[in-house]
Order: sequence, then C-alpha cells, then structure tokens
Amino acid sequence: MSSLSFYNSLTRKKEEFKSITPNRVGMYVCGPTVSGESHLGHARPFITFDIVYRYLLHLGFQVRYVRNITDAGHFEEEGRESEDKISSKAILEKLEPMELVQKYTNKFHWAMKEFNNLEPSIEPTATGHIVEQIDMIEKIIADGFAYVINGSVYFDVEKYHREFSAKGMPYGILSGRVLEDQLETTRDLESQEEKRNKSDFALWKNAAPEHIMRWNSPWGVGFPGWHIECSAMSTKYLGQEFDIHGGGMDLQFPHHECEIAQSAVCNHHIPAKYWLHNNMITINGRKMGKSYNNVIKLSELFSGNHEILAQAYSAMTVRFFILQTHYRSTLDFGNESLQASEKGLRRIWDAFQLLSKFNIEPQQSIDTIDASLNQHCLDVLNSLDDDMNDDLNTAKVLASLFELVPIINSLNDGHIKFEALASDTLKLMKDKFKVYLVDIFGLQDEQKQHDDKISAILHLIAEIRKDARDKKDFTTSDKIRNQLLAAGIQLKDEKSGRVSWEFI
Amino acid sequence: MSSLSFYNSLTRKKEEFKSITPNRVGMYVCGPTVSGESHLGHARPFITFDIVYRYLLHLGFQVRYVRNITDAGHFEEEGRESEDKISSKAILEKLEPMELVQKYTNKFHWAMKEFNNLEPSIEPTATGHIVEQIDMIEKIIADGFAYVINGSVYFDVEKYHREFSAKGMPYGILSGRVLEDQLETTRDLESQEEKRNKSDFALWKNAAPEHIMRWNSPWGVGFPGWHIECSAMSTKYLGQEFDIHGGGMDLQFPHHECEIAQSAVCNHHIPAKYWLHNNMITINGRKMGKSYNNVIKLSELFSGNHEILAQAYSAMTVRFFILQTHYRSTLDFGNESLQASEKGLRRIWDAFQLLSKFNIEPQQSIDTIDASLNQHCLDVLNSLDDDMNDDLNTAKVLASLFELVPIINSLNDGHIKFEALASDTLKLMKDKFKVYLVDIFGLQDEQKQHDDKISAILHLIAEIRKDARDKKDFTTSDKIRNQLLAAGIQLKDEKSGRVSWEFI
Repeated sequence: MSSLSFYNSLTRKKEEFKSITPNRVGMYVCGPTVSGESHLGHARPFITFDIVYRYLLHLGFQVRYVRNITDAGHFEEEGRESEDKISSKAILEKLEPMELVQKYTNKFHWAMKEFNNLEPSIEPTATGHIVEQIDMIEKIIADGFAYVINGSVYFDVEKYHREFSAKGMPYGILSGRVLEDQLETTRDLESQEEKRNKSDFALWKNAAPEHIMRWNSPWGVGFPGWHIECSAMSTKYLGQEFDIHGGGMDLQFPHHECEIAQSAVCNHHIPAKYWLHNNMITINGRKMGKSYNNVIKLSELFSGNHEILAQAYSAMTVRFFILQTHYRSTLDFGNESLQASEKGLRRIWDAFQLLSKFNIEPQQSIDTIDASLNQHCLDVLNSLDDDMNDDLNTAKVLASLFELVPIINSLNDGHIKFEALASDTLKLMKDKFKVYLVDIFGLQDEQKQHDDKISAILHLIAEIRKDARDKKDFTTSDKIRNQLLAAGIQLKDEKSGRVSWEFI
Repeated sequence: MSSLSFYNSLTRKKEEFKSITPNRVGMYVCGPTVSGESHLGHARPFITFDIVYRYLLHLGFQVRYVRNITDAGHFEEEGRESEDKISSKAILEKLEPMELVQKYTNKFHWAMKEFNNLEPSIEPTATGHIVEQIDMIEKIIADGFAYVINGSVYFDVEKYHREFSAKGMPYGILSGRVLEDQLETTRDLESQEEKRNKSDFALWKNAAPEHIMRWNSPWGVGFPGWHIECSAMSTKYLGQEFDIHGGGMDLQFPHHECEIAQSAVCNHHIPAKYWLHNNMITINGRKMGKSYNNVIKLSELFSGNHEILAQAYSAMTVRFFILQTHYRSTLDFGNESLQASEKGLRRIWDAFQLLSKFNIEPQQSIDTIDASLNQHCLDVLNSLDDDMNDDLNTAKVLASLFELVPIINSLNDGHIKFEALASDTLKLMKDKFKVYLVDIFGLQDEQKQHDDKISAILHLIAEIRKDARDKKDFTTSDKIRNQLLAAGIQLKDEKSGRVSWEFI
C-alpha cells in the first residue's frame, strides 16, 4: 500500500508524511475570527482539515488537533493596526467585546455541528493566552528582533531576514515573496511612521484610552497583534516543532510567514514540518467580497435566504460539494454545481444504503464469478487508499466510488447476479463505502432524520392498531385521529384489529 | 402589583430589588469546574439562575449574565493548594489539561442545552484571565493585604479583618462565620507553614517543576488561586459593583467570602448588591458524595444508568422537580418524587395544551358568569406575579397553576361551560400559563418533538396524495409505500386523487 503524502507549501512539493513522534500527530489549524457570522468561505478550511483529522484518526494516529478562536488582535486591515475586528464590531453592535465573542462563537459551533465536523481536541482563544503572547514577545525583544516604540512592539522583519536567511529561514520562505518587493508595494498607512520599515508587523499595540480591549503588559496597556497568538498557542499545546499547520491559502502571507519568523526567533525552528493550505472559494467566478454582495453567511446558505441562491443547500450538500474538488484547487460556487452535488450525494448515498443491506453469502463456487467485472471492482476499491494517500484526493475517491454505483444498482435490481462477484469483493465494497463516506468524509444521511420521523408515526399507527385490538375504548387515539383528520385523512373504520383510512 | 424582592444572603433578609443602573442588570454566577462530567448537584444552581435570568428578561431588564468556566485554580481541597482539580484529572486521564477542559466543557454545554437553560451573555474562563488576576493580586499586595513567600502569594485574612471590620466589611460578613472560630478549626495541611495564619488563602501558587499548568507572573512561574478568578472576571465584565452574585450555598464560604475581601481591597466595594444562594440537593436524605456512591452524573440521570435510579428521567422532569421546591429549601432527590414530578409535568402540560386551543369568544353576556368561580380564577392568576416577585417562589406559582388544571379540564370536557368565565379571565389564563411555563420556567414540550414527527409524516402523506392526483406515475412514493408495508400497512387503492390504506 502507498503511504500518506501531503503537498507541503513550505517545500513546494509532495512529501511522505512522517510524524515527529511515532503514532502521534500534532496539528494546528487557524480558526475563525469571531467578529461576525461564519460565511461560505469559512466552510472550506474547516471541512478540509476535518477530513485531514478524520483520515489521520482512521490511519490509527493519536491526534491532538488544536484550532483556535481569534477573539482579539485581528486587525481590520494589515497595516491599519489601531483597531481590531472584535472591538470595531462590538462598538457597532453595542455589545461588550466578550458578549460579541460569545454570540459568534456559539454560532460558529452551531455551523460546525451542522457540517458534522468533529470537535478539535483544544480550542484555545487569543484572549486566553495573553501571558503566553507577552512571554514570547519578551523573548523576541531580548533576542533583538523586535523593538518597543510608544508602548507598541514591532517585529523587525528586515533584521530577521538578514540574519535568518543564512540559517535557511528567510522571511518569505513559505509564501515565496521577496522582501524587497514587499517594501515597495506596502501601502502607506497609519502608524507606519512608528515602524522602522514598512514590512515590520505589530506584536503588541499600545491601546488608545478609548480602546475597549486592553491588557497590562511590560510595555503599558495594550492588546496583542494577530500573528503572535497562533505562535504562542501552537507552542504551548503542540511544542516548539509539531507536525501539521493548516489554514486557508489567504493565510500563507503574511500570517503564516510571520508565525514562522516568530517561532524561528523564539524556538529556533520552523514551527511545523508540513504546511497545508486549502485553496479559495469563488462565487460564480468572482472573489468573495462585500463590494460584490456575494458573502453568503452559512445560515443564509442553509435556509436559501440570499439573492444569489436559487434554493437552500443542506450542510451535507455543501460538504459533498467541497469534497468533490481537490482541496488545493479553486472551487467555484454556483447554483448549478450545488444542485449537481445535491443529486450526486443522493445517488451515492442511496447506493450505499442498498449496499449496506446486501446479504453476503459465503462463496459457493468461483465458476459464477465474472472475472473481468470482479477485477474491475477490485481495482477501483484498491485505488481508494492510494488516492487518499496522494495528498487527500477526495475528488478522485468520490469519482471512483461513483464508478461502482451502477454496479450496486444492477446487483440490487438483478441485472447483475451477486454470484458474479466474489464474496470478498462484495465485503470489501461494503467496508470501503462505509469507511470513506461515513468515517473519513463525515457524510451523514439527511434522509435518516426523515426516516426516523416516518418510523415514529408508524410506531404510533401501530399503537392505534393495538388499541383497536385490545380495547373497546378509542380515547387514547383521539388526538391522532383528529390530527389525521386535519390533514385530510379520514379514519374509515375502527373494527377491532382492522383500521383503514381514506384521504378526503 | 408587588415589586421583585430577593432574599439577600448578605443582609440575611428579603429586600426589594433595585438595579444599580435603571433597566439594566449585571449578574455573575459561579460556573462549573470542568475537571469532570456535571452531576445532579450542578443541575440546581444553573437551573435556578436560569430562572432568575429569564424572569429579569421577562420583566424587561437588559441583563448581562456572566457565568464562568473554572479551568484552573480550583484546588483539590481547601488548604491542599499544591495541585488543582484540572491538573490532577488531566494526569489521571492522560490528557493535556486543556484537552480535558475542552472535553468537559463540551459535555457541560450539552447538559445545559438539554435543560433548556439560556446561554449566558459571556462565559469567561479562568485561564483566559491570568493577566487580570495578576493585576488584581498586585493591587492587593500593594495595598498591604497580601504577602509573597516562596513564589506564592497569600491573602492576609487577619489583617483584612482587622482593618475592614471598621469599614463595615469584616471577613465573615456573608457567611456569618467568626474568624476566631475558623482559626481553631482549620485543619493542619500542607503549605500551611508558609502562611502567616491558617485562614489565609492563596492568590497565586508557585508551581513545582512537575506542575503541568503554569504561567509567568511577577512572583515566578505558577498558577492562580481559585477565588481570585471570579473577582477578576466579575470586575472586568460587570464593573466594581454589580447587581447580583449567585451560586450554590456551598460557595458562600470560603469562595464568596474571599471574593468580597478581594474586591473590598481592590475596589473598596462589596462586589455585588444582592447575593443569591440556592440550597443543596440530597439523595434519599443523604449528602451527595463519592463515599456514598450517590453522585449521579447528568448523562446517567437522563439514561437511567445508575443503581440508585429506578428509571431514566428526562431533563424536563428534573427541571420541573427543581422548580417545585423553593430554591432556598433543601431538595431531596428520590425516585418517588421524580416519578411524581414526571406525572405532574405531564398533567400541567396537557392542561396547558388544551388551554392553548380554547377558542375564546367575545363576551356575549355577563349573566352566564359564575361569579365565585371567575373570582377564584382571577385570584389565583393574580397571585402568580406576587409569588414570583416574592424571592422567586416557583413552587407556589406551580401549585397555583395546578389549582387551575381541574378547571381547564372541566372546561374542555364541558362540565364547566366557557360562558361561566369572563372572556378576559380566559385570556389571562391562557397568557399566564404560557408566560410562566414557557418563558419564565423554560419548560419545553417533550411531546412537541413527537408532534413534529407526526406533522412530518402527514406532510409526506399529503405528498403521496398530490402525486396520486397530479401524476399517473407513483414511483416517487414507492419508498414510503414499502415502508408502510413493512409496518403492516397496505396501500389498498391508488386511483387518481384517492388513496386508502388498510392494516394487514
């Protein structure tokens, strides 16, 4: 069998995955900034890394999955560092910043449950790690790679680049950006004059008296920069060097680049061995953005309540849609593709349900086996792990599973006899469908809930029937009878043991 | 109408509630220590203060409800301060402390949802407020009421008592305990020798090298004491003086007593105006405790999986059981009482459902009114707000609502004519049942879920009927037809527009 490999953004090539500690994996994924409701753009990274998590668990690793909540420090815009997103939104919504954080953290958790994403092992918050961030900043200052000015602390990117290039950790190592180019393109924005160089970034910002989020620090009252939180929290919970760091491609620069610089100074290491980045979602070919009015909140997506949406899309449809494209490819959201995913999910799930119910008989004879069909099935089934190991090619795995759907349907309707396949092939098929669809891809049967409701009413109907048999008295089923009547169903006849209905 | 009054543990009398800022209330409630799964003992405070929260909202207050999560600092035993509960349990479960915290916080949130408790406005964590705790400790040291020894900081209770008694804030003001008595009874335990006096308590503890939870501080690496977290977090989110501080009676001493001392030094105030404490739950007359094997976890309670339990009890039954006793009275848990609550809830809810469906006609004539019955109903209905205002006498409110149940049932079955009551009385009855049962008491219809299922199947049946009308083709309802068949229901006839079934 092939072994797991990831495309490592750091080395720009596919590499075999070898965990630092045998059988254990530490994974850090940048979580949401909870200044507002999660939108479609948030669905992709959290589903992508849920798949990484589930696949590692499936492979038998003990995984510590850390996904943070950014509840402070995320500036409105890079360079515009005097106000952070939480503070601004809190003022707008007239809430204490932490009330705002609570509100949107709750909503985020709700959306993650809808997507059937597993809960991370630890979900640390930026405000919960002020001490750790201060500790790290002090170390960076002590090592000479940050400077204090007017109660703020900035990371000295040029000095870092100069000294760490020789150590194989230049600034730009992850994103491939060249520092000199950046110096010319960085816009002139407020507080730039405090910085020695335009590319320097804030580790700590002095809080103006009116700033509503503030903590004591060795440099006076202020608040942390965004980049330092992830370095502090990943070091605390995963150590100075851990296995996987994940996030959206938009976080490569500057966020992850800055994380590397911070950790390189403090821990003399690039923090993670493998850097995984999912590509972005576009909407009908356009980048998501407020100016395009195409930022679709997850609650709008699930309810269909946005002018771009032709209908509501369930969380499972969106999950399936995301899995149908490789995580490093761009993904264009549009009603047609989503509707196709909705149908695709139904089709594959129906086949899976049929397959689950097949009763596999012990092999009677090998004479009945259709060798070519059997081999085809085996080839497809054996390709799944290879495709998944090949940088998580969920798209190819799904395409392969779809190849088996007509065969399952034909087995079900008798066009292909069960004897045409070896019983081991059938067993493998059953196993692989379950492992991939349920365990690794985390798909759920949306029909199941519906079916549960049907079972419940059938149970109730059975109770009426029992009443009708056991008792002369029908009072216990009055309520149901009235409800049925209200829905246009007339209880025709209630003789002992026989009840029949008619639509009116 | 009466005005709201609370029994204030601080003054030991019932007092009219007047919020510090008109129309706004700040309330702090001590939350769980997430070192393990929540048990029955946790149900009472969180339901009690959910009722306080809901009632204040009902009265039109804008409430900021802060309930913390203790994820550090809660010592295994008062006086045994070298290890805290989270650390000990993390070692036992072989988890990183914050993995443990995540696990049990998730479980706690699940249980709160089951009880239909509203989410607090802010749910701050102890580890999320290390800076604020350090700030407060520094202030206490600067004011001379704490001393540093071997990297730990202790609050000087005797000195506090000496100097603050004159200011009307003696140590013992809340619990009524006399400091001199405590000095004699406090047991000799480890680290006592560090303290000047046995009653002193830790604000910060020096962490031994093997201690797994540790933060930098002005006194070296260590971890915060338990009491300081609530003072720091309540001050941060509710200000130096806020309206209500709540918790279980077991927290009065030493936890709340220490909070008062800390805030008195730092903010020159007793932090809260009203101190509310719920009484304890006993199990078959006994205190809950590991040695009695009577600590029932909430998941055990809901599933019936504990040797003490004769059956499973739903979250709503437990909620109703708790509301049937005044929050300041002891409450004895036993199978018989729970079973009685289960029946009681069903009885009152059934009446409420009947009442909701009554069609209230405009008053035709006052001649038909049974003046004495009408007056009785009005008296009972008008007593509800007074009883609730009287220190939240939920028990009396429920008893009063129960008095009306036979009248509702008689109205329903015709033994009492609707005309015997004024239509305004009927309207008031409808309104009060809804407001109390649903809005204030937060009860939910466990039947509702069941009813939703019935509606869903009726909707499905309507679809079959539509199919039958609109199409010649019945393929879309094949699945349902098969399911019905499996449940013993034969689809008899499918002529266009008419479908009838029969049980087979």
